[in-house]
Amino acid sequence: MIQPPKGTRDISPEEMKKLQSIIDRFREIFEKYNFLPLETPAFESFELLSAKGGLGEAAKDEIYYFKDKSDRELGLRFDLTVPLARFVINNSNLTKPFKRYQIGRVWRYDNPQAMRWREFWQADVDVVGSSSMSADTECLAVSVGCLLSLGFKKFSIRINNRKLIEKILIKLGVKENKIFDVFRIIDKLSKIGLKNVKRELKENDIDIEIEDILKISGSNKEILENVKKKFGENEGLKELREIINLSRKIGIEKYLKIDLSLVRGLDYYTGPVFEVKIGDVDVSCGGGGRYDSLIKNLGGPDMPATGISFGLDRLLTLIKDSKILNRKVFVATVNDKVKEEAFKICQNLRKENIISDIDMMDRKLSKQLGYASKMKYPFVLVVGKRELEKKSIKLRDMKKGKEKLVKIKDIVKILNKVLNQ
Amino acid sequence: MIQPPKGTRDISPEEMKKLQSIIDRFREIFEKYNFLPLETPAFESFELLSAKGGLGEAAKDEIYYFKDKSDRELGLRFDLTVPLARFVINNSNLTKPFKRYQIGRVWRYDNPQAMRWREFWQADVDVVGSSSMSADTECLAVSVGCLLSLGFKKFSIRINNRKLIEKILIKLGVKENKIFDVFRIIDKLSKIGLKNVKRELKENDIDIEIEDILKISGSNKEILENVKKKFGENEGLKELREIINLSRKIGIEKYLKIDLSLVRGLDYYTGPVFEVKIGDVDVSCGGGGRYDSLIKNLGGPDMPATGISFGLDRLLTLIKDSKILNRKVFVATVNDKVKEEAFKICQNLRKENIISDIDMMDRKLSKQLGYASKMKYPFVLVVGKRELEKKSIKLRDMKKGKEKLVKIKDIVKILNKVLNQ
Repeated sequence: MIQPPKGTRDISPEEMKKLQSIIDRFREIFEKYNFLPLETPAFESFELLSAKGGLGEAAKDEIYYFKDKSDRELGLRFDLTVPLARFVINNSNLTKPFKRYQIGRVWRYDNPQAMRWREFWQADVDVVGSSSMSADTECLAVSVGCLLSLGFKKFSIRINNRKLIEKILIKLGVKENKIFDVFRIIDKLSKIGLKNVKRELKENDIDIEIEDILKISGSNKEILENVKKKFGENEGLKELREIINLSRKIGIEKYLKIDLSLVRGLDYYTGPVFEVKIGDVDVSCGGGGRYDSLIKNLGGPDMPATGISFGLDRLLTLIKDSKILNRKVFVATVNDKVKEEAFKICQNLRKENIISDIDMMDRKLSKQLGYASKMKYPFVLVVGKRELEKKSIKLRDMKKGKEKLVKIKDIVKILNKVLNQ
Repeated sequence: MIQPPKGTRDISPEEMKKLQSIIDRFREIFEKYNFLPLETPAFESFELLSAKGGLGEAAKDEIYYFKDKSDRELGLRFDLTVPLARFVINNSNLTKPFKRYQIGRVWRYDNPQAMRWREFWQADVDVVGSSSMSADTECLAVSVGCLLSLGFKKFSIRINNRKLIEKILIKLGVKENKIFDVFRIIDKLSKIGLKNVKRELKENDIDIEIEDILKISGSNKEILENVKKKFGENEGLKELREIINLSRKIGIEKYLKIDLSLVRGLDYYTGPVFEVKIGDVDVSCGGGGRYDSLIKNLGGPDMPATGISFGLDRLLTLIKDSKILNRKVFVATVNDKVKEEAFKICQNLRKENIISDIDMMDRKLSKQLGYASKMKYPFVLVVGKRELEKKSIKLRDMKKGKEKLVKIKDIVKILNKVLNQ
């Protein structure tokens, strides 16, 4: 028996209905904020995927790499941001800001583990061309909109600013060429703990009291004030304050939490960074930030950009079963002779927007009723010869196990009534 | 400048809106017929893709083949039928019939040409587990439903039956081991013409008067009668008749056209075959048929199945621009001081389900109006300090170039009125 490749999986109809409803909600909210849909190929040239500013030299280890039959080096996309950057470079006449969303699968050659697949779904929104903090706030606002629309109540988006942390680190005595090392080590905080972070810093000859940053806590307002008192005013702090103020004004500040330990793993972030946490679950369900140098690094113009990306596979495991509408009816037949008539009745119901189905296994009536029960049909229409002669049909309530005779011409009206109860 | 890989393309927001509306229509109709959604990985093991009954040995030439870092042989899926067959084999407890739909991309290493991409979109419906002709008719009915829902009026689904053609060929003297060769040659009829079909048959030592089959024409009823008169009754003919009769009953026969020259290219078809043509365009927009041996050939149980697949990229080029709703408003600011207030107004409109957007480029008012005009906003709200003091805002009709002062509390009501005109 041939299984799906390692790290991938089939999404069964039941799960797929849930995933589809998540995707639909994202789309609805994204479009309300006037983000536009874009679709890019599943694979890209390896030159793009391995370019500086993206995965860089690590690319070959982390992606599915292959060659086409003309020896072109290719790879499955590992995110939706690098393809967006390529699209922006290829289409220089796009009206700016270019606000786009994209929902699709990406592939990474990770070690498969719980809630981590080699093939997974992302939903991204990005604003390209604006350096204003209103673009970052817009990404946060649309994210809050999506999470609320999915029915989540307990969630937070942690935010920070890399420029601010860089300034603080330099004040604390870190050399400029060590900044990215510190970012990478701090990024592991939740995984390895403070003690190990301190040890790793020491091992890298970085001699700072990292608690000086990490122990600053309180409300967003308090953190902003304390940082200013301790390290002085600077660009990154201003940006953070601007996002918080604008967010307060539009009613989303309560979902934001400044966290000075947040830096994010990827090299390309240049300012604000975000990370989404839902409930008490310790894994991130999404994240992002500003990446003002990526497009230039990939060979394009100097073009600011910011965005956020959600991991749909994780949301899928966290989301409650949405109330699945069960507005459907099965058309059963007493015998073969009424089959064509039954198919006609079924087809008419579909025209009236009632989900309906009919036997295709030439099963006996009792087996058809068993099938309908297994598939959770609340009602079954039983088509029989004698009833047809009276232009009627039996309507069976599967829960109560009761039947009544109804006129064929009244079926739609009656079904619309009973199915909506 | 790095381009998308050869044979692939980006789908711009404008095109993507169209494609998305096609996908939405397909989903809606599929679900009305109670087909269930399934999602399978983008790549499968090469063992599956190259198995007998699918592409077979030709697989390596026709697919994107690669190895993962543990040297597992993989390939991008070339259709959605073979992954479905694998899913059915892996999940033996599925309630039958299993009616599933899947919409997604597939990849083939073809030579790119007009309307032919190496990465393209398919929408499939299949009924697994039923050998009844009502399953085939169901696939035809849902197809007609989709095409009508997309607004097509001039279309036809050509149908035929391989069992019937096989019987006729044997009556005409073709040896059984030559049957598939004849299928493959007849399949080229529309491409190479009758003269070349006859030549190729001769070159393959197949000495028949192929016109004896091909010249049988007329209405579906006439063809069924003529074939019976000429070649006698047989299983394939019975199946074809059953589909036509059932289709007449449910009101879709007018869209079906028996075409005895239709055999389809793939080896795995075993009975009814279908092909969708729209208007006068000579390319197929979809096709399918019954494949009762595929699941067994892939190592599964003896399991009948039938289905149909649409090529969405081709539909995308044929479809008229759907009337795009332009219910959106841009919130412009007179200067920086009113920005936060403007963002708040914008955010409130979104809560009221009005698509709205705001400047993120710190542009002057005149530039903002230019942007709104370029992006085809029918209305702009202009937020200014003096107006805010009067709890008001200017509403600008972009077509007429006229402005009027409106109360902030009345905006939603007024916008809902003017945007619906």
